Amino acid sequence: MNFAHLVVQRLDALAQISEDEGGLTRSFASPAMRRVNDLVGSWMRDAGMSVCTDAIGNLIGHYPAATPAGKILLLGSHLDTVRDAGKFDGPLGVLVALACVQFLNETKTRLPFAIEVIGFADEEGVRYQSTYLGSRALAGTFNCEDLKRTDARGVTMAEALREFGGTPDAIAAARMDASRLLGYVEVHIEQGPVLEQKNLAVGVVSAITGQTRARIAFVGEAGHAGTVPMNLRRDSLCAAAEFVLAIEELAKDRSGLVATVGEITAMPGAGNVIPGQTKLSLDVRHPDDVTRSQTCDELKLRADEIAAGRSVIMNWETVHESAAVVCERRLALLLENATKCHQGEAPLLASGAGHDAAAMAAICPVAMLFVRCKGGVSHNPAEFASEADIGVAIEVMNDFVKSLAKSK
Amino acid sequence: MNFAHLVVQRLDALAQISEDEGGLTRSFASPAMRRVNDLVGSWMRDAGMSVCTDAIGNLIGHYPAATPAGKILLLGSHLDTVRDAGKFDGPLGVLVALACVQFLNETKTRLPFAIEVIGFADEEGVRYQSTYLGSRALAGTFNCEDLKRTDARGVTMAEALREFGGTPDAIAAARMDASRLLGYVEVHIEQGPVLEQKNLAVGVVSAITGQTRARIAFVGEAGHAGTVPMNLRRDSLCAAAEFVLAIEELAKDRSGLVATVGEITAMPGAGNVIPGQTKLSLDVRHPDDVTRSQTCDELKLRADEIAAGRSVIMNWETVHESAAVVCERRLALLLENATKCHQGEAPLLASGAGHDAAAMAAICPVAMLFVRCKGGVSHNPAEFASEADIGVAIEVMNDFVKSLAKSK
Repeated sequence: MNFAHLVVQRLDALAQISEDEGGLTRSFASPAMRRVNDLVGSWMRDAGMSVCTDAIGNLIGHYPAATPAGKILLLGSHLDTVRDAGKFDGPLGVLVALACVQFLNETKTRLPFAIEVIGFADEEGVRYQSTYLGSRALAGTFNCEDLKRTDARGVTMAEALREFGGTPDAIAAARMDASRLLGYVEVHIEQGPVLEQKNLAVGVVSAITGQTRARIAFVGEAGHAGTVPMNLRRDSLCAAAEFVLAIEELAKDRSGLVATVGEITAMPGAGNVIPGQTKLSLDVRHPDDVTRSQTCDELKLRADEIAAGRSVIMNWETVHESAAVVCERRLALLLENATKCHQGEAPLLASGAGHDAAAMAAICPVAMLFVRCKGGVSHNPAEFASEADIGVAIEVMNDFVKSLAKSK
Repeated sequence: MNFAHLVVQRLDALAQISEDEGGLTRSFASPAMRRVNDLVGSWMRDAGMSVCTDAIGNLIGHYPAATPAGKILLLGSHLDTVRDAGKFDGPLGVLVALACVQFLNETKTRLPFAIEVIGFADEEGVRYQSTYLGSRALAGTFNCEDLKRTDARGVTMAEALREFGGTPDAIAAARMDASRLLGYVEVHIEQGPVLEQKNLAVGVVSAITGQTRARIAFVGEAGHAGTVPMNLRRDSLCAAAEFVLAIEELAKDRSGLVATVGEITAMPGAGNVIPGQTKLSLDVRHPDDVTRSQTCDELKLRADEIAAGRSVIMNWETVHESAAVVCERRLALLLENATKCHQGEAPLLASGAGHDAAAMAAICPVAMLFVRCKGGVSHNPAEFASEADIGVAIEVMNDFVKSLAKSK
């Protein structure tokens, strides 16, 4: 069996399952997620796993240990996507984990520990602007207040989840028993340019960057585009534009910082009306939590100054914060050793992107393996990782699982 | 009959007819426009008029002349609205005209000319970003290429019009016979602060400002918000933000100019994705056509410079241009005389907003009467004109019609 080829075929199959025509989008608790869970679940069963979907909609396949007393190694990633996504971000980690289990099953191998392969229900946070819904449920850090959040159409998270077949009332009970977990290991595309520059297939993650997401609103006054003189306007979009540029300027000035406004809405949203209210999203990341926090404070101050200068009101709501997470040294070392066997060297990378591993770190050791992606491009249909590199990742993970079994 | 009170009651009734819950929005060829046409049409019939809806969806009530050979005086305004509109902009002009005819009908008065009251199908251009659809059809300046335009949901104008019950193929034939028209006179709220400052109920319009509307797109590259370093980004929203501020700066610097960005869309539109493409609307107005045209040229140049400086692409599409229109002296003089009878003086105002009268000027003399509105606020639910001021407008229009009949 050529597992790398199988993974590529399966990535193609999953890329066909979308809520948008002509592009790939799978958001939390959507019909597309239901279809993806069904398909991946069927592959899990074919690989000798028992399969269930938990209260938040995570797909979990269980491959038993040699003895009932065995602990559990968690492998996986997420099955949701950003809007107009590439096909590797998320699904690759689930399918590589699945390939490892399929290899064990075909060789009739039982390990001293069980393996659970998880396809997380929501990592990107596209629908409810709050990431890691799936992994936070497993880690017991899910905030049940989030169930009241509404999506763009006004549907609450609780309603969406019920519609999907989940059970909002049972999310607290979905928390995993930390005492049984050996750790969580995730394979993911790098989403950056380092491995490509080093001409290496895979790398081991040292730490995952911390992240703050906020929603900012500027509230001015709507008015007729033809009759309100420029000097009497309180244009909320002009305030937002000034803030977008202030964010860019500050981020460019601070080493290692990235800050992004990905969404903006001017209301009421007609060409001949001065925007009375403008809302925007803000995403700030830095490997150092103190720097990130200070940056957010400074940006909030700038937003206040801009609003005051234009006699508009500024509202700031922090909707997500995750601290930087250091990968566990012992698991990372096993990944490094396996990597060295296959490509000679094992570079250590910091992850600029957040991952489910960051949430899982609340209950168990975590580690991550990055796979080279073309041009560092991600969150984009042009996202690409080669079959050869995916093959290296599968072999590294097979070796990692074997070496972990030996060390137990 | 207290006609001012009747008009206020009818404005309230029309304000209930909306495509949005909790706000007033009526866009071209919507079910809300169908309901408004039905209701206003029933009032027209009650006032002794025969009623029809033309190919583009304009509602036209005909009050016959004393003799079949009589020419036609057109009165009216538009029945569509901006998004989250006030209730006076448009409907007031239709209902004041209707009150004048109702007065003639109740006093069994026939004039040497017929009066047609028109409720135009589209003045605001919310749905297809192209204004005066209704009046341009009557004036014979409708561009049939516009029928291929699509709305936000991808519905072409031709499809929408057919769905509404109009006949896209017959729009050319909807052109009125210019030789039979005495002129078009429109009553409208001022949408500016001048009459309030002068403490006067109504004013006579000297000219209507020219207008350019454009759609601008900046195309950069989408990417992951966490992994693409700031200095490698080609963020389309940052380019758009820079342009929004450049527009504001230039407009503030040029006397009499107003320029507005009312719509902005960043794509793909997720908080953790760098916007690959950002689209925005631009609305530029000035009483002098040459100044307006030069301003647009300069703004296009600035947009090009901003795009070049950020290695993004800029696309500019001019979607609407209307020249400034001077109101006809003879009709305006009759309005001035009638106004002086009721409030002592008759201020002359330039209109910063575009109006159907601007399009109708292509086939007949036009004139306009402005009604004071509170705080100059318009395109906003807070829009307000008092019953007393509406009463003055009705009396001025009654006198105007009488004096026009005498002068024939």
